[in-house]
Amino acid sequence: MCSNCDYTIHGRQHHFGWDRSIPPVEKVTPGSTLKFECVDSGSGHFKPDSTVANVSTLDFSKVNPVTGPIYVDGAKPGDALKITIHQFEPSGFGWTANIPGFGLLADQFKEPALALWKYDAATLEPALFGKHARVPLKPFAGTIGVAPAEHGLHSVVPPRRVGGNLDIRDIAAGTTLYLPVEVEGALFSIGDTHAAQGDGEVCGTAIESAMNVAVTLDVVKDANLSMPRFTTPGPVTRHLDAKGYEVTTGIGPDLMSGAKAAVANMVDLLGKQHGLSAEDAYMLCSVCGDLRISEIVDMPNWVVSFYFPRVVFE
Amino acid sequence: MCSNCDYTIHGRQHHFGWDRSIPPVEKVTPGSTLKFECVDSGSGHFKPDSTVANVSTLDFSKVNPVTGPIYVDGAKPGDALKITIHQFEPSGFGWTANIPGFGLLADQFKEPALALWKYDAATLEPALFGKHARVPLKPFAGTIGVAPAEHGLHSVVPPRRVGGNLDIRDIAAGTTLYLPVEVEGALFSIGDTHAAQGDGEVCGTAIESAMNVAVTLDVVKDANLSMPRFTTPGPVTRHLDAKGYEVTTGIGPDLMSGAKAAVANMVDLLGKQHGLSAEDAYMLCSVCGDLRISEIVDMPNWVVSFYFPRVVFE
Repeated sequence: MCSNCDYTIHGRQHHFGWDRSIPPVEKVTPGSTLKFECVDSGSGHFKPDSTVANVSTLDFSKVNPVTGPIYVDGAKPGDALKITIHQFEPSGFGWTANIPGFGLLADQFKEPALALWKYDAATLEPALFGKHARVPLKPFAGTIGVAPAEHGLHSVVPPRRVGGNLDIRDIAAGTTLYLPVEVEGALFSIGDTHAAQGDGEVCGTAIESAMNVAVTLDVVKDANLSMPRFTTPGPVTRHLDAKGYEVTTGIGPDLMSGAKAAVANMVDLLGKQHGLSAEDAYMLCSVCGDLRISEIVDMPNWVVSFYFPRVVFE
Repeated sequence: MCSNCDYTIHGRQHHFGWDRSIPPVEKVTPGSTLKFECVDSGSGHFKPDSTVANVSTLDFSKVNPVTGPIYVDGAKPGDALKITIHQFEPSGFGWTANIPGFGLLADQFKEPALALWKYDAATLEPALFGKHARVPLKPFAGTIGVAPAEHGLHSVVPPRRVGGNLDIRDIAAGTTLYLPVEVEGALFSIGDTHAAQGDGEVCGTAIESAMNVAVTLDVVKDANLSMPRFTTPGPVTRHLDAKGYEVTTGIGPDLMSGAKAAVANMVDLLGKQHGLSAEDAYMLCSVCGDLRISEIVDMPNWVVSFYFPRVVFE
């Protein structure tokens, strides 16, 4: 991987939260290509022999480390940082958890749950979940961002105007991402790598998995971007869509309630169709099912749909 | 089309709004296949020689006619109506409008706008918009539903638990839709056919286009469905995704605000990249761009993304 990288940023060079006062671990010129070693979002808490009891002992002060920050010469507030994402080198081990109090259906799923994944990091063949489900993989970095202008330490959990914990499943290899720069040097960091995730990340976690990532950092002067944007060079769902989808809906005047209803309806459907426990169905939805807004104009009711790829059970 | 149809329900056999007291135009046995002639959502108001002045004279008492209702023998409250969608026979003419007061960005787009479409109904080749944009087509019925249990006349505009104005772009040929039945006989109607629409239908209209539709109606006893659901037999976005996407985001604690920001950011981007007027970009977004919920768990900020297919300009 990354035979042309200019720098390697090691896993120990990580930080928790965003803060413009964190000293950069490297200063680079625009156009530099870097390999980042990304620790998983649990900072290595979960191992292949972990059990559900380990969910309760997760240390929240060490959640979601990001590798960096990188100072990019010449980047100034008002510019955009252009991040070209080349390649992921996944570890082959991953975890998905229902963490009580976290996730779209936290009111319904109050007990901890844990799924462990072993996948072929070389071939990225679909990963087995339970006895019958096979989840197509598509590695990406859930957290990718630059430092906010406001002084002080800011939680890594919420995504921001400057990126961060975006959890956008299509910011994968080949994608070009543009982030608004708010401080001199941009101060770029990356982490929270996922082997697979559906749009929404509904249970709160994806297939959380340590990985190396190779990216090129560039500066676009005076881009005056209000929010992150990105370009994908090709299709984004062909690893999922070959056999079509089962789709459930949530209809009503509030998008959040609609999203909850659509996912709860899919959890029910997967239980009926495949005998999955509600917890397993919920975690499976999080790693491969997609939340879409089908209709947002027919006042006063909107339609949120949840798309579950049928290929998982075929 | 529909050489095996058992019934033809003609365009004059339409109604406005949902009301269980509307007498059925036909009574059929489960398993019957019907051809429906669907008037467009403007009841034929727009013609190939219409201008933007015609937007203001649209008669809202005649918006969104649906053809039906059909009484299906044996369908009872608690059952599901299973609708197998076979085929669309589009007219080749369509319209898209910004109607003041309606649409996701109604606060920003206060003036009427109109785009007229002429497309090849036989080949369904992508339809030209302006001088350079070509929009892939995928016909579907925006409004498909059964009568609600509650007595009285209910507006056709909002979608409901029993379906109606769902505007789900993937309820296309080959799809099987299940709707909760609330009254004896279900009382099925269909209309509001679209030649193309993106997820969200953000400007409030799609490529509105009269069409014939062939469907089979069946009854699933005691399905006890809480909301509509459907199954697609294959991929749903391959007509759009070959060249990838430009994606803008809206990040914050409210999904509706996030959706508005993501679409407004795309309107800006299309203006910069292709010189489109804001009105044209907004209407183009409505007919081929998709609203997705990328992340809905990283408290307190969610990410709504708007995906615009690059193939439109290639």
